[in-house]
Amino acid sequence: MREVPLIIVGIGGVGRMLLAQIISKRRLHAERYGVTLGVIAVCDSRSAVLELGQGINDANLEDVIELKAAGGSLDEHALGGREYAGLAELVTAVGRPGVIVVDLTATEHTIPGLLYSVEQGYRIVMANKRPLTATQEVYDRLTRAGVTVGGRQGEDGTDYKQLLPVRWETTVGAGLPVISTQQRLVASGDQVHRIAGAFSGTLGYVMAGLEEGRAFSAIVREAYDQGYTEPDPRDDLSGADVARKALILARGLGWSLEMSKVDVTPLYPAELDNLSVEEFLDALPALDSAWAEQVQAAQNEGAALRYVARIEDGQCVVGPAAVAKSSPLGNLSGTDNLIEFHSRWYSPTPLVIQGRGAGIEVTAAGVLSDIIELTTIRYR
Amino acid sequence: MREVPLIIVGIGGVGRMLLAQIISKRRLHAERYGVTLGVIAVCDSRSAVLELGQGINDANLEDVIELKAAGGSLDEHALGGREYAGLAELVTAVGRPGVIVVDLTATEHTIPGLLYSVEQGYRIVMANKRPLTATQEVYDRLTRAGVTVGGRQGEDGTDYKQLLPVRWETTVGAGLPVISTQQRLVASGDQVHRIAGAFSGTLGYVMAGLEEGRAFSAIVREAYDQGYTEPDPRDDLSGADVARKALILARGLGWSLEMSKVDVTPLYPAELDNLSVEEFLDALPALDSAWAEQVQAAQNEGAALRYVARIEDGQCVVGPAAVAKSSPLGNLSGTDNLIEFHSRWYSPTPLVIQGRGAGIEVTAAGVLSDIIELTTIRYR
Repeated sequence: MREVPLIIVGIGGVGRMLLAQIISKRRLHAERYGVTLGVIAVCDSRSAVLELGQGINDANLEDVIELKAAGGSLDEHALGGREYAGLAELVTAVGRPGVIVVDLTATEHTIPGLLYSVEQGYRIVMANKRPLTATQEVYDRLTRAGVTVGGRQGEDGTDYKQLLPVRWETTVGAGLPVISTQQRLVASGDQVHRIAGAFSGTLGYVMAGLEEGRAFSAIVREAYDQGYTEPDPRDDLSGADVARKALILARGLGWSLEMSKVDVTPLYPAELDNLSVEEFLDALPALDSAWAEQVQAAQNEGAALRYVARIEDGQCVVGPAAVAKSSPLGNLSGTDNLIEFHSRWYSPTPLVIQGRGAGIEVTAAGVLSDIIELTTIRYR
Repeated sequence: MREVPLIIVGIGGVGRMLLAQIISKRRLHAERYGVTLGVIAVCDSRSAVLELGQGINDANLEDVIELKAAGGSLDEHALGGREYAGLAELVTAVGRPGVIVVDLTATEHTIPGLLYSVEQGYRIVMANKRPLTATQEVYDRLTRAGVTVGGRQGEDGTDYKQLLPVRWETTVGAGLPVISTQQRLVASGDQVHRIAGAFSGTLGYVMAGLEEGRAFSAIVREAYDQGYTEPDPRDDLSGADVARKALILARGLGWSLEMSKVDVTPLYPAELDNLSVEEFLDALPALDSAWAEQVQAAQNEGAALRYVARIEDGQCVVGPAAVAKSSPLGNLSGTDNLIEFHSRWYSPTPLVIQGRGAGIEVTAAGVLSDIIELTTIRYR
């Protein structure tokens, strides 16, 4: 049985679900993969609970889940949450060969700790998009194969390159196998010349409503009232989160591209940015007729309006677009995510992956798959 | 740079394409993955060309491609094709730690060699479905994680289990990420309660034609004339190949199931099995009205007739079935493959993968992806 130590950073909904799954799948992981996952550290933004050696026992992990679900801080945990200055400090203190660092936060603050982990040859799983959408240099150091790892040398005494033991499947489409599929296409030498996808359930809901002929303002108001949007619906409607996913896909094709070069069209004009949420919602009816016209124009061409990310010809473009009704994206309705890979071998019909692309269950499940895959990857 | 020795068994269209891709992607594989693929043996059914050490050079590999494309035997190769009794003998003679054995045949004869390879801790890639659809015992020994590998011991002195370094992505849906996705779902502890899929481009073509109201006999005759079917179209219409794929998926869920328990309904009655191909095609018009009725019955229910594999409730059923028109399978038309995974987390809408599911390009590309992935997997 191989014991694999984990450092888990960020204990929101996904983190709690992940801990619960680690506990409940111990037998599966032992019998099928010969692996025991030992959580040696869990951290929220302020403090960490540590138990080196074989890791925090399940009773204490369950206490962590309960504590955080109730809105508490790890400070209050029986194992005595310790304050820590940042992930780098924590990993320096408790990291050890074979550790997997799991970043479930949504912040750039983890970048130094992740870079340190890569340099040590530790393995990393990221659900956090921010490190991958920071500068190209950070992306390359975190993910790019061909990097000489930590100045270490191969068995033959020469520096050697290797595929970094790093996974970030859930940053695009949650548990859907988007990143791994892209990596397989790249490894096979296939030429991906176009990616098009819908990566926001909320925006999918808005576009489906528009297609049914409903008013833009009414759809957004309803989605907000039902809790389908972020607390500030502009965080969805700005397209910024979709843009981050598009950038991760573009970089995954080997492109060098900064976030500032991603061309994003929000679903509302910039002058609404300074309003309060209520003022913003009240201002939306002024946009209704323009949206109805756009939808009608697309339908007149036999097309459908979708909020899509397109990566092709060196351009990464995110915004509303008319797509052929007969295409996979045109067939999509509702909140599922969908990605089309158009390549030399997948042409004229693309390789398509479709399904729920958000939610704590599928995200936690995808992170757990990443962890299990990494336990089989060589590291040094 | 890590040198990875390959033994490639079977040099048909996929094998030649794979060799061509290995040659043309050397720079990609070196720069991105730090890997050099060295083909130390290629074999057809009778003989092998060997060059141990760093592998056969590219000029000689190109000669192999040319020779086999022209219908020749490796006997005639400049490096002197050597006769060999079987894969087991060959692997025993030339296998070495770190080798990847690539089975591109469509025969059970490779099973002893593959089992020997697994016992040695060698890595395996199979495009060949036969070893995975032989007895459950063979399947388990070839693929099942949790097997103690070759009596070897872990670093701590105890026997240990590990995920076997074995890949068989292209056995279902060619290059589509079907097996890897299933493995990710299983590893995450998600409960897959239903798989439904269309895994034959030829049968997809037939069903699409029926939906358009064409006569069954005319569609099959046309597909045969155009070369879309096997030389004997019954090899497609029997559903046997789809049944093998269904069995591989069922076993991938952890089921123990033998081929004889897969419930297969062919597209023609058993009494046509003894006819010649021409007699068979001439006999088909007698089936036309029954097919037209089945299609009509499905349409009357708002459903569409597809040739599907269904894996659920302990049953593995392959045959024509009415599926909801609004479902991903109901939306499918043409020759693409499609798979729906219905699970605890992917519900009510399934996780869907769709795209070209056959052809030498996508199959060779999928095999190459498997090889590159395996180069990162620990072995001993």
